[in-house]
Amino acid sequence: MQAIQIGIVGSGKVAQTLLRLANAAGIPIAGIYARNQALAEQLAAKYNTQCVAQLSELHAELILLCVSDDALPEIIAQLKPQQIAAYTAGSPSIKLFAHQQLGVCYPYQSISKGRDLLVSDIPFMIEGKNDLVLQRISTFLQQLGAQFQVCGSAQRAQYHLAGVFVNNFGNLLLLEASKILGEANLDMTPIYPLLNETIAKAILLGPEHAQTGPALRHDQNTLDRHRAALNPEQLVVYNCLTKRIQDLFPHA
Amino acid sequence: MQAIQIGIVGSGKVAQTLLRLANAAGIPIAGIYARNQALAEQLAAKYNTQCVAQLSELHAELILLCVSDDALPEIIAQLKPQQIAAYTAGSPSIKLFAHQQLGVCYPYQSISKGRDLLVSDIPFMIEGKNDLVLQRISTFLQQLGAQFQVCGSAQRAQYHLAGVFVNNFGNLLLLEASKILGEANLDMTPIYPLLNETIAKAILLGPEHAQTGPALRHDQNTLDRHRAALNPEQLVVYNCLTKRIQDLFPHA
Repeated sequence: MQAIQIGIVGSGKVAQTLLRLANAAGIPIAGIYARNQALAEQLAAKYNTQCVAQLSELHAELILLCVSDDALPEIIAQLKPQQIAAYTAGSPSIKLFAHQQLGVCYPYQSISKGRDLLVSDIPFMIEGKNDLVLQRISTFLQQLGAQFQVCGSAQRAQYHLAGVFVNNFGNLLLLEASKILGEANLDMTPIYPLLNETIAKAILLGPEHAQTGPALRHDQNTLDRHRAALNPEQLVVYNCLTKRIQDLFPHA
Repeated sequence: MQAIQIGIVGSGKVAQTLLRLANAAGIPIAGIYARNQALAEQLAAKYNTQCVAQLSELHAELILLCVSDDALPEIIAQLKPQQIAAYTAGSPSIKLFAHQQLGVCYPYQSISKGRDLLVSDIPFMIEGKNDLVLQRISTFLQQLGAQFQVCGSAQRAQYHLAGVFVNNFGNLLLLEASKILGEANLDMTPIYPLLNETIAKAILLGPEHAQTGPALRHDQNTLDRHRAALNPEQLVVYNCLTKRIQDLFPHA
């Protein structure tokens, strides 16, 4: 199978991750187009490719649009009708865009600077306005060695939303825990086995069977002690999540 | 070193876990005292020990009080002055109780039926009203093969509170995610790599550097789309946690 040639639009975390993974998989990179020209030049040098000054000059079998949701409409409007492109954003529906040769290649993962993810850590969710687009995206991901599933915009949006609860809000809870401990000069180490078990149990028993704690038990003394120890902002979060647990498990 | 002889009060998850681990470590179990006599008899038979009808009849070098916070005052009041005992609850302060031979042996872990934890998965936090009590608890945990740290009631309460954010509230977020996906007939599998990365990143970068997402970016379009997809109860949680992220990261 001949390697598919890709083009990259953008120079942020997703663009950099796809460049790194594609390069490692021997997938040829036709060029990079990005607003941040200095960074684009740097990436082009690193991955032995060129920068282009116009999106229309990017000649590739598949153009990956690694830009923010807000920048997508403007970028997609610049595509020539025959350019085959896929965006990497999870939330916007493909129906929002008129371009006919459009697809979605959404990495369902939290991508940050300083974390070089393995391709096996990133399940992709893909979609295409036609079979040709879908086939190009599939070929690219197969050559990348990635797992992927075809997933409509509505379903992808649900995964995106669920991901916010797991990743964004999950990280916030770890931040709250680190603040509670940090303010008392206590270290996070004893938290990690608890965190591991929280996840193992939720996966193995299902989160609906793994819920424990004073909110679930309606243990008013402990709830009162906790509330007295929290600052007003933490208290809002504590009360909100405690109420939600008690509403979900009224008779526990 | 001669094995320390323990007694167990209670028949719930913590009592059962300590019985199992002590038995596996060859620690002699003098007896069990519990309100639920049928279950206590069953556990006594399983671990080749006796049930006692009164707490005062439990003759052991260390009595482990594995009962709920609410039941603790009544149980501790039944101890004879010379009985050395430690409770396993994380939240109540040792100062709440008058008994002089009292300590704390708090397993900092989420213990559920159907999950046989390894002793290495349970860091213990211990405290004692005097050196003799503390030494008995240390000896027990050393013989159990457990990791432990001496930790005052105030610090233990902070760990307990942080644990609620990580475990109880963390599980709630996984439950919300499973509801969002379940209602759309989508499976949880793609969530797991994201969950793993959420935790790996929070540990390696620190949760204050690992925050991502539409709340952090103040990405109003995505926030609006998410809000439109949630039911009223989920929306309360979403809005509360989104606001907290935006308050913590005002200039992100």
